[in-house]
Amino acid sequence: MSEAARLMEAAIRLSRRGLGRTAPNPNVGCLVVKDGIVIARGWTQPGGRPHAEAVALEAADEAARGAELYVSLEPCAHVSARGPACADLIIASGVSAVHIAVLDPDPRTAGQGAARLRDAGVSVSVSEGEAAARAAMAGFFSRMERGRPRITLKLATSIDGRVSMPGGESQWITGPEARAHVHLERALADVIVVGRGTLEADDPSLDVRLPGLEDRSPRPAVLSATLDAIPGAAKFAARDPLLLASVDDLCGLAVNDVFVEGGPATASTLLAADLVDRMLVYRAPIVLGDGAPGVGRLGLERLADAHGRWRLAETRTFGNDRLEVYARTR
Amino acid sequence: MSEAARLMEAAIRLSRRGLGRTAPNPNVGCLVVKDGIVIARGWTQPGGRPHAEAVALEAADEAARGAELYVSLEPCAHVSARGPACADLIIASGVSAVHIAVLDPDPRTAGQGAARLRDAGVSVSVSEGEAAARAAMAGFFSRMERGRPRITLKLATSIDGRVSMPGGESQWITGPEARAHVHLERALADVIVVGRGTLEADDPSLDVRLPGLEDRSPRPAVLSATLDAIPGAAKFAARDPLLLASVDDLCGLAVNDVFVEGGPATASTLLAADLVDRMLVYRAPIVLGDGAPGVGRLGLERLADAHGRWRLAETRTFGNDRLEVYARTR
Repeated sequence: MSEAARLMEAAIRLSRRGLGRTAPNPNVGCLVVKDGIVIARGWTQPGGRPHAEAVALEAADEAARGAELYVSLEPCAHVSARGPACADLIIASGVSAVHIAVLDPDPRTAGQGAARLRDAGVSVSVSEGEAAARAAMAGFFSRMERGRPRITLKLATSIDGRVSMPGGESQWITGPEARAHVHLERALADVIVVGRGTLEADDPSLDVRLPGLEDRSPRPAVLSATLDAIPGAAKFAARDPLLLASVDDLCGLAVNDVFVEGGPATASTLLAADLVDRMLVYRAPIVLGDGAPGVGRLGLERLADAHGRWRLAETRTFGNDRLEVYARTR
Repeated sequence: MSEAARLMEAAIRLSRRGLGRTAPNPNVGCLVVKDGIVIARGWTQPGGRPHAEAVALEAADEAARGAELYVSLEPCAHVSARGPACADLIIASGVSAVHIAVLDPDPRTAGQGAARLRDAGVSVSVSEGEAAARAAMAGFFSRMERGRPRITLKLATSIDGRVSMPGGESQWITGPEARAHVHLERALADVIVVGRGTLEADDPSLDVRLPGLEDRSPRPAVLSATLDAIPGAAKFAARDPLLLASVDDLCGLAVNDVFVEGGPATASTLLAADLVDRMLVYRAPIVLGDGAPGVGRLGLERLADAHGRWRLAETRTFGNDRLEVYARTR
């Protein structure tokens, strides 16, 4: 792996620090490198500003002159009320070369950031790390390219696919290690969604209860076609939740990452609409035999229709449980 | 690992060649070693005779004199109409030392094989490889120590635990690689069991269709409390199947390994009776949403009752599918 590829990989890894906190902006990572030494770093800050490049250039200050910049996404070309265009900041900083992992799909930039840099005499390369950068900003790319957030469905299930006992008991299918990882995944999302059934049965707080990450709880939402208003005076209601009347409302959210923890009805609604991009299946080594299934009716007509949609992308062990990460194939 | 441990490991591995073919006898493996060189090998032959020691000693012939013997199970001490006791064969062969992985739980031997060898001046050690030998002869040990065969339950299921479409379509949930592995597992069992539902719906042949292993098809059986006779003139009936009216009949079979491929009712009957020792879950990366679940009602009252019974012992990948091997914890 070349030095440039390694530096870009580091910038992309840095970009993940903003996951779940930068919407509607992308989560970008940036390094300033001089004489082979990283002299400053930046990543998009909560709320989406300042941008990664602004943070890194402010940290580098005068040392940026003649340095090279590695950034996971093309610097923006548009001036906003919230700050200047990053392309202009870079030109002003005296940086001599900019390495970009992937061009910005936002039509306000879309190549114009790179063009403005080149016009100003800055060397620009778009070469290393496109796939990794797209993966690190998958939610943002989903919104730009498909017009909806990336949607992750979480299931905590038995070997035989049950998520609760016949009487409804579901605490706990999985152990504390798996549940802690769910909280970590929550912290990387902008919005967390449940259905009416889960809301009414559990009044879930859906927050992040990991030491040091308490302020990273995503905004809660309920997906229900039959609810007129959020029920009051409850844990869920206290967190200023959104009411989504349809999957169109969900798809229209100006956020990058949506995490769905929601009951068989919600799961099957999203799966049947082919809106799930990633499934996190936390599987406990238990057999329940009956009880609620994790997924409800999808309306598939033939077994062949079920094939080819998913691939097992990753597995991890948490205590006695196993996480299966499925990614959509198309 | 010592030289003795490595040789015993090889003898134990050899014992697995008899799996599914030696019942009611154990599947034993044996090496004859002289001056650090393996000069002969043997494993229990189909039908249970000749025993592993007899095969190895016949191959070694006069060279056995002064050699050492590694055997995965204590040599038998009882003369049978089908052959002499292995302890006597070993004494007559002039072998100077016998290494035994585990003593024979069969009350007709149970230490008497080792004692007879020692009385004849043969050096005997019981030290290396007990756990591995018990694992390789798990079915035989189950029958000797618990009075029933080892029972393995196979499921081919979706991510969400379904084994067929609502209309019954189940060909195929898993791909050809996983299905070939099922045939390999069949070849290692003495008896293969389905329920009445599977028999009537599928008329399965339940044979081993792997090149070179066609003669290793286990004896088929149907577990049904309501069937008076095997239905005639069918693929299943043509293979001389057993009719098991109850789990007691199944547990009473004079075989070591039973492989159950049988439908949700059969699975839940055996699981509810706590008779399953091993589950092979072949999981396809598909979501079905509804259709038949792999396991039916178990009658568990609390979620806590489901925990602690299973551990994920192994996972393997077959094509797009994943095999999860669960072993009972107690």
